[in-house]
Amino acid sequence: MSLCRRLFSIALLLIAVPSCFALQPEVHHPLDALTPDEYWKAYKVLQAAGKLAPKTLFASILLEEPVKSVVLAWKPGDPIVRKVDVVLLNESKSYAAVVDVSANKLESYTELTKEQAPMSTTESRSFDEDIKKDPRVIAALKARGITDLRTVHCGVIPAGYVGLPEQTDGRRIGWGECSDEMDSLYRWDRRIAGIFYVMDLKEKKITRFSDNGAVPMPPSTSIYDADGGKAMPGTKPIITLEPEGPSYTVENGEVDWQKWHFRFRLDPRVGPVINLVSYNDGGKPRSVLYEGSLSEMYVPYQDPDEAWNSHVFLDGGEFFANTGSGGIIKPLQVGVDCPDYATFYSGTFFRDDGTPYVRPQLACLFERVTGDPMWRHWDGSTSAISGRPTRELVFRTVATVGNYDYIFDWRFGQDGSITVGLGATGILEVKAVKDQTADGDLSAAMVGKTPEGKRVEFGQLIAPGISAVDHDHFFSYRLDLDVDGPNNSLMVDKLVPYKLPDTAQGRKWIWAMMPEMAKTEGEAKYNVSVEHPAMWRFANEGVKNKLGQLTSYAIMPGETGISILPAEEWPQKRAGFSAHNLWVTPYDPNERYVSGVYTMGSKGEDSLPAWTKQNRNIMNTDIVAWYTMGFHHVPRPEDWPQMPTMWHTFTLMPYQFLIKNPTMDLPMTP
Amino acid sequence: MSLCRRLFSIALLLIAVPSCFALQPEVHHPLDALTPDEYWKAYKVLQAAGKLAPKTLFASILLEEPVKSVVLAWKPGDPIVRKVDVVLLNESKSYAAVVDVSANKLESYTELTKEQAPMSTTESRSFDEDIKKDPRVIAALKARGITDLRTVHCGVIPAGYVGLPEQTDGRRIGWGECSDEMDSLYRWDRRIAGIFYVMDLKEKKITRFSDNGAVPMPPSTSIYDADGGKAMPGTKPIITLEPEGPSYTVENGEVDWQKWHFRFRLDPRVGPVINLVSYNDGGKPRSVLYEGSLSEMYVPYQDPDEAWNSHVFLDGGEFFANTGSGGIIKPLQVGVDCPDYATFYSGTFFRDDGTPYVRPQLACLFERVTGDPMWRHWDGSTSAISGRPTRELVFRTVATVGNYDYIFDWRFGQDGSITVGLGATGILEVKAVKDQTADGDLSAAMVGKTPEGKRVEFGQLIAPGISAVDHDHFFSYRLDLDVDGPNNSLMVDKLVPYKLPDTAQGRKWIWAMMPEMAKTEGEAKYNVSVEHPAMWRFANEGVKNKLGQLTSYAIMPGETGISILPAEEWPQKRAGFSAHNLWVTPYDPNERYVSGVYTMGSKGEDSLPAWTKQNRNIMNTDIVAWYTMGFHHVPRPEDWPQMPTMWHTFTLMPYQFLIKNPTMDLPMTP
Repeated sequence: MSLCRRLFSIALLLIAVPSCFALQPEVHHPLDALTPDEYWKAYKVLQAAGKLAPKTLFASILLEEPVKSVVLAWKPGDPIVRKVDVVLLNESKSYAAVVDVSANKLESYTELTKEQAPMSTTESRSFDEDIKKDPRVIAALKARGITDLRTVHCGVIPAGYVGLPEQTDGRRIGWGECSDEMDSLYRWDRRIAGIFYVMDLKEKKITRFSDNGAVPMPPSTSIYDADGGKAMPGTKPIITLEPEGPSYTVENGEVDWQKWHFRFRLDPRVGPVINLVSYNDGGKPRSVLYEGSLSEMYVPYQDPDEAWNSHVFLDGGEFFANTGSGGIIKPLQVGVDCPDYATFYSGTFFRDDGTPYVRPQLACLFERVTGDPMWRHWDGSTSAISGRPTRELVFRTVATVGNYDYIFDWRFGQDGSITVGLGATGILEVKAVKDQTADGDLSAAMVGKTPEGKRVEFGQLIAPGISAVDHDHFFSYRLDLDVDGPNNSLMVDKLVPYKLPDTAQGRKWIWAMMPEMAKTEGEAKYNVSVEHPAMWRFANEGVKNKLGQLTSYAIMPGETGISILPAEEWPQKRAGFSAHNLWVTPYDPNERYVSGVYTMGSKGEDSLPAWTKQNRNIMNTDIVAWYTMGFHHVPRPEDWPQMPTMWHTFTLMPYQFLIKNPTMDLPMTP
Repeated sequence: MSLCRRLFSIALLLIAVPSCFALQPEVHHPLDALTPDEYWKAYKVLQAAGKLAPKTLFASILLEEPVKSVVLAWKPGDPIVRKVDVVLLNESKSYAAVVDVSANKLESYTELTKEQAPMSTTESRSFDEDIKKDPRVIAALKARGITDLRTVHCGVIPAGYVGLPEQTDGRRIGWGECSDEMDSLYRWDRRIAGIFYVMDLKEKKITRFSDNGAVPMPPSTSIYDADGGKAMPGTKPIITLEPEGPSYTVENGEVDWQKWHFRFRLDPRVGPVINLVSYNDGGKPRSVLYEGSLSEMYVPYQDPDEAWNSHVFLDGGEFFANTGSGGIIKPLQVGVDCPDYATFYSGTFFRDDGTPYVRPQLACLFERVTGDPMWRHWDGSTSAISGRPTRELVFRTVATVGNYDYIFDWRFGQDGSITVGLGATGILEVKAVKDQTADGDLSAAMVGKTPEGKRVEFGQLIAPGISAVDHDHFFSYRLDLDVDGPNNSLMVDKLVPYKLPDTAQGRKWIWAMMPEMAKTEGEAKYNVSVEHPAMWRFANEGVKNKLGQLTSYAIMPGETGISILPAEEWPQKRAGFSAHNLWVTPYDPNERYVSGVYTMGSKGEDSLPAWTKQNRNIMNTDIVAWYTMGFHHVPRPEDWPQMPTMWHTFTLMPYQFLIKNPTMDLPMTP
């Protein structure tokens, strides 16, 4: 190497040093995600306070989001007080701590007596040996010809409260089944049928064991090619390019794109959190949404067998620390999950030993041209056509919760709309059954009879000997709309048949819109209905557009569902939000998680149905919408071994927010 | 020019002659659209038979589609019998003719006594002078300061039956209002408020005239820039290329793309007709859909004023000959309505003088890469991700019906799904009102009271002095699914709460799927319901997949609506299909138009509710689905002067049709 080159290298190194330090995420805004430095500060404060025993697990480490008034009053340069909510688990005891990482101070520390810490992967896996030592388990496995247990894994999942005797004294309980991964690559179709146990996690003892009888393990059909096949003959490339780069700018989590401005952060528990969304109306940024995020996911399985109907997941509250490398959202594939021209963003999350880590490609941002017109018209009188092409901005993450993958989209439209998309893909949960074919009688593991003698089915064969069990997916979105400011009211515009006067010629009936303002949270519970249609809007009683109309945004459902389980069923008490598509409550910084901060062991004490019993005022005050997007899943063979993405959406739509279509002046190229 | 060049040119000319003749569309298949030659044959047969008087209008010229058995039995090379259904109008009398254009023979010719021909533009415009001669009209216009009537247009729209005295003897009736296009470019906000007339179209006389009082004409706000504006600062290009061209082949209306095969034709009345859709399953084409198309559109306005609530459009049956240059679908803009790399197709339609014409760019076909994954999974046990990008094939047309533009999509998925998309855009129908602002009391033209004293609204201000009237859009799709053959049954898989035995531990309730086969068309009427969810499937009782399951396709609704007008309201008797989201009937070649072949003057005699009173068997026979996609439109200022496209969709989804996800072997590039 020449001297010249060597000097040049040293010079480069010197230049590189400051930008290298700049890679360390800093806190620029009260709503920024926790930085590695802050995770370590929280760790060290707890360490110094003597709260970390050798086996203590960090079940949750989350930013304690400042209350809205503090955030709205904050200006760049102002100090930022940063607090971290930590949940620790030691010897099956749960502890809640608040650490002020700005002051390096332990603000509070409490042992939880009613509530329980979420289960982390380390805890979940820690019972494998204990279970496999239980003579009942050994005998049941032996009866199935399994004696070498090296490929057998006996897991524990959080036991959602269902009123079992084991659950009545607040004990930490789990339950589960064993899998044998022999002959497969993934465990999803390797569950050993018939075995079920309830476990006292403190005592590390199985309190109840059942064996409903062996079912032969079907051949694995879950193995799939990870590399991709050949294109079908005749398939030619489609290439999308942004030769000059993207049209958005992102700085410290603040996104600017066309008329939109918003912040994002990646939260370990609920995934993407979108904040301070504003739409620029003629040079003036106008508030639309203070915060939008997932609040909870509820996935109850529907099968008569306790081993299966005990699968009642509150995936938001239960599984975010589940993977050892915590955080519900998982890496994205360039060119598969997002276009290859997308911009990718990393996230800083925690392992359940309390250490932080940074993972790249957890979120992507991209502009999309679908080839659909924003508007168009052919005018009969002039035979002239006009219209505009459009583009949209997509912010995307993917949550993986065990078998399922959920694509979370926030799509910003040029017309002022925001569409929230949820794509469900991944792997079905399946059980081994005796049935090799659906042709003929099916076993009791698959079909039953109603008291009236009608045949019902609990799942569908998706391969010989494999049934995919019926289940639901409910996603509760917490939408803190602040339309032109925090104080909003819920307008429910019902469409009602309207009788014309008897003197009317021709038509006797029309329908008319009956706008009603919801008064209290007790009445603000609504379902989608084709027979009784209504529009739901967040309106600002203090702000009118130039036409004298209260400015508002409508929440427009897409295809959706609600839970059809009776309200007295325990899972419904815990996930009661799923009984309605829309609920509205007054803003309360303590009400972020629709089924409670602590879902494990919860009986629904801290949940939306419980909160709304207060029947608080929701008129002309800061209100929050809880929107349930749900669907029932009766699986198909076509969903196996991977499920084609099933999309559901809803849209936040400006309604009398503007005084005309804001896309009239778009250019003729997207 | 050298001799050599000259000879070469002549040679070229000689070569060019046959290919020039080849441009004349030929009939290759019984389901091909009518060719110019066939239009002329029909014309000449009617001419020779002495049926064309000097003022005879061709209100309808449609291919008489051969019955299914004939089409399915047909093979290339077999003769094709082609028939044309013609409706003529002369002196307000209607005539139906069937012309066998293969034999140049008038097969039948009947004067219609009960039914009426659709109204064409020439007829509609022909009353302008008569109306403007009526002293009541002259006086009403004068009272509004309008004396020069050159820019005033007084139209007539088809009078949907509402039981008026004028309508009881089967007379041909129209009604309407006048517009003054002064100060505008388009007439959509130029209606002269207060004036309404009912007209006897035979006598060319106004039979009833009303003037509810003048309202000042508001300044026009409907003018929009047809050229496009400047891109917002920072907007950079996005370019999509197919450098090697598209991956589909199209020959004589037959499309091949990946595993899909289908035919299309462009019909003047219902737009795109998709036929003989099959999905290639391991080398074997399997029938999915014999025919899919729009059947009817129903757009009733909801306003107490007869001038407005008489706007009850059955746009499919009423308006396809409406423009002088008939055919419901209108030209597409390259790069606006379809991507610039799309392939465009022309259509041959008719003018109401009976002459054919060809218009380019009436349909487009394109592949689309949305950047969404077909499937993906992150596996916790291996921390590995896999997935596949996807593309879809879109067949698109746009129907324009006066003010509204409807984008009709047929989207073919690699997973075996077909998604039907309907995008509504174009211009609102608006009325002049006294109200300049919504701030304060509104006039009786905008608000009313229920008998209980509750305030209701009939429309919304979208500009000062302009109210956009509430209305609905209902689209009836006729879906002749032939899943693995013509004989199918309708499976209704209800999800019902299911009580577990009292001995069950934990859960007390699950839900289960209760599959029921619908027996007759009388019971096969269903609505979307979140409280009572069900899956609707067309299953083949004679064909099972390798898992022993009846092969089927599900009809999966997207967000939709039904009509909320009482059944006894006349528009509901005529468009009764809108009372339910799904109806199923046995195949009958005479049942193509859900509100009848002849909608003008119809009382619903020939309509889906009337047909289904026969209560015919629908089990294991050739059945047809009628799916209603509907939405209620309470307009926003943001919808003016052009409405941002509002999309609705439904999906035909393979269900136990295949035995696994057919996209597992897709390549890693879309």
